[in-house]
Amino acid sequence: MSETITLAHGAGGAQTADLIDRIFKKNLDNPDMTADDAAVLDLPAGRIAMSTDGFIVSPAIFPGGNIGKLSVCGTVNDLACMGARPLYLTCSFVIEEGFSMDTLEQLAAAMGKTAQEAGVRFVAGDTKVAGKGQVDGVFITTAGVGELLEGVHPAGANAKPGDAVIVTGDVGRHGCTILLARNDFKIQADVTSDCAPLGKTVERVLNAVPDVHVIRDATRGGVGTVLYEIAHQSGIGIRLNQEAIPVDPAVRGVCGMLGLEPLYLACEGRLVMFVPQDQADQVIEILHDCPYSQNAAVIGTVTDRKGVVTMKTAIGSETILPRPGGELLPRIC
Amino acid sequence: MSETITLAHGAGGAQTADLIDRIFKKNLDNPDMTADDAAVLDLPAGRIAMSTDGFIVSPAIFPGGNIGKLSVCGTVNDLACMGARPLYLTCSFVIEEGFSMDTLEQLAAAMGKTAQEAGVRFVAGDTKVAGKGQVDGVFITTAGVGELLEGVHPAGANAKPGDAVIVTGDVGRHGCTILLARNDFKIQADVTSDCAPLGKTVERVLNAVPDVHVIRDATRGGVGTVLYEIAHQSGIGIRLNQEAIPVDPAVRGVCGMLGLEPLYLACEGRLVMFVPQDQADQVIEILHDCPYSQNAAVIGTVTDRKGVVTMKTAIGSETILPRPGGELLPRIC
Repeated sequence: MSETITLAHGAGGAQTADLIDRIFKKNLDNPDMTADDAAVLDLPAGRIAMSTDGFIVSPAIFPGGNIGKLSVCGTVNDLACMGARPLYLTCSFVIEEGFSMDTLEQLAAAMGKTAQEAGVRFVAGDTKVAGKGQVDGVFITTAGVGELLEGVHPAGANAKPGDAVIVTGDVGRHGCTILLARNDFKIQADVTSDCAPLGKTVERVLNAVPDVHVIRDATRGGVGTVLYEIAHQSGIGIRLNQEAIPVDPAVRGVCGMLGLEPLYLACEGRLVMFVPQDQADQVIEILHDCPYSQNAAVIGTVTDRKGVVTMKTAIGSETILPRPGGELLPRIC
Repeated sequence: MSETITLAHGAGGAQTADLIDRIFKKNLDNPDMTADDAAVLDLPAGRIAMSTDGFIVSPAIFPGGNIGKLSVCGTVNDLACMGARPLYLTCSFVIEEGFSMDTLEQLAAAMGKTAQEAGVRFVAGDTKVAGKGQVDGVFITTAGVGELLEGVHPAGANAKPGDAVIVTGDVGRHGCTILLARNDFKIQADVTSDCAPLGKTVERVLNAVPDVHVIRDATRGGVGTVLYEIAHQSGIGIRLNQEAIPVDPAVRGVCGMLGLEPLYLACEGRLVMFVPQDQADQVIEILHDCPYSQNAAVIGTVTDRKGVVTMKTAIGSETILPRPGGELLPRIC
């Protein structure tokens, strides 16, 4: 029988120490990782960004990623959206008694690999174990801090009429992947999650175009929900061009069968950017040169119709985009 | 029927926004709290401390506190143990579908009150909802950063032979409280958790005595486990004086009935400090003047017997303290 997590692994004694050594330190260790209650870190003077996200996605492993990779990407991307270079992460696990040790190692390995790619270090962590049936599998919460890049101020309230609205890649892949992985609909399609760390992408864009007005990752509720949030925060409207919105053909096919709008499916590696119109081409050119944004596109423009998001459809009519009702599926991330 | 949490509250749409406004913003709001993906914060130049802890305690509400209060105290105390002044916290909730909205508000109110007392601000948060039976009640993960105080370097590896070993209050109260609250033993006793934020206590001690060698909070596994950890990290031994260890009479009574050693019951508001012998009196004097450490005591001294923790018992014999096996109970914190 393969080894599983026991309540003793969460009890704070010898077994907890062993689990930390064998799984977490092995995959996440670095000179800043603490063996004490908190890590002590050097930070450049000035402003930092700080964020947290909890991850409870089901299934924990899905085409294109797993909850471990997702837990790094989510917090890295949140920091990047504020114009910060992500530096340090913490992670906190709640694991179900009986969870497979091999699976846990797979998740930790993905966290280590993604952190390395993103240029961030895990500096502190915590492990709790809940009894069988008290938590479904594994939940991971990450928090992170990053160093604010000089002279940039992207924020949800900064969109301005005339801005170009950019999406950094095809939309709805993560949501569609989880939908298919749950297997409730018995549909087979070749779709993988877009889950990716985007800190370096954002840094390249901001180095060239510091005046990006808004950056936000289109997670729960997808691009549609994010657009309504920003319209509300900035007191502006948005006009989308449906034909310009990149959607993977397989995702489009699944959405067609189920009557879903891809704009409302979660992404985990896609950003929405609001950019002064005259700098949009330059941003798109940089995005096309980055690994996770090769089909970035301008999908619309900002109007002064406060809180109204419309879409010009393929047949030329203009409709109001439905108000977001949140995510279709529970435990999407 | 009173209102409960639904899956829609975790879907990232209108209901999530409503929950955040009504429960979390209402109780935790402050000028640094972000409405974006990450908070942007000013930090003084230099070193920071960073930590995280997940909280899954069951029951979520217990005499002397609740999981909300605990989630603030735990991270505040971890930062303080490294000689940092806690500044900013994040919180991430995973809530079971059907959880009482009134109870959630009670937890958030406790978080707000404790954060205010501790002088910390919540700057970012996340809310997820898992289906009925997929998480038992509510889990909260907090992460925090603090500003390192000048000229202090407490760490688990810094204990030195001759140091006085101090505990900041009577031991085992939190563990005993949870044990009784579970009601498995049908014992009635008037015991409340020691759960408390200790950042200001630590700062007062370090301002007067910067050369404190080790500070650690005695959570899972209690004081006994912490002493073995420090003996290991510092390569020293410890000799305890059993008669000097403060134990509440009710806790002693419960331990007597169940055959438990209070040194291995979790605390959530008690620190262990290792202090140069000639400064121990001064530290004790300051602790006695702080709200949560009025029965602080010197309970032992550091020896050079690497990794060996002994205890002089009330009848004068000296025994080796049993090696910690971790926490007696799952979900103690």
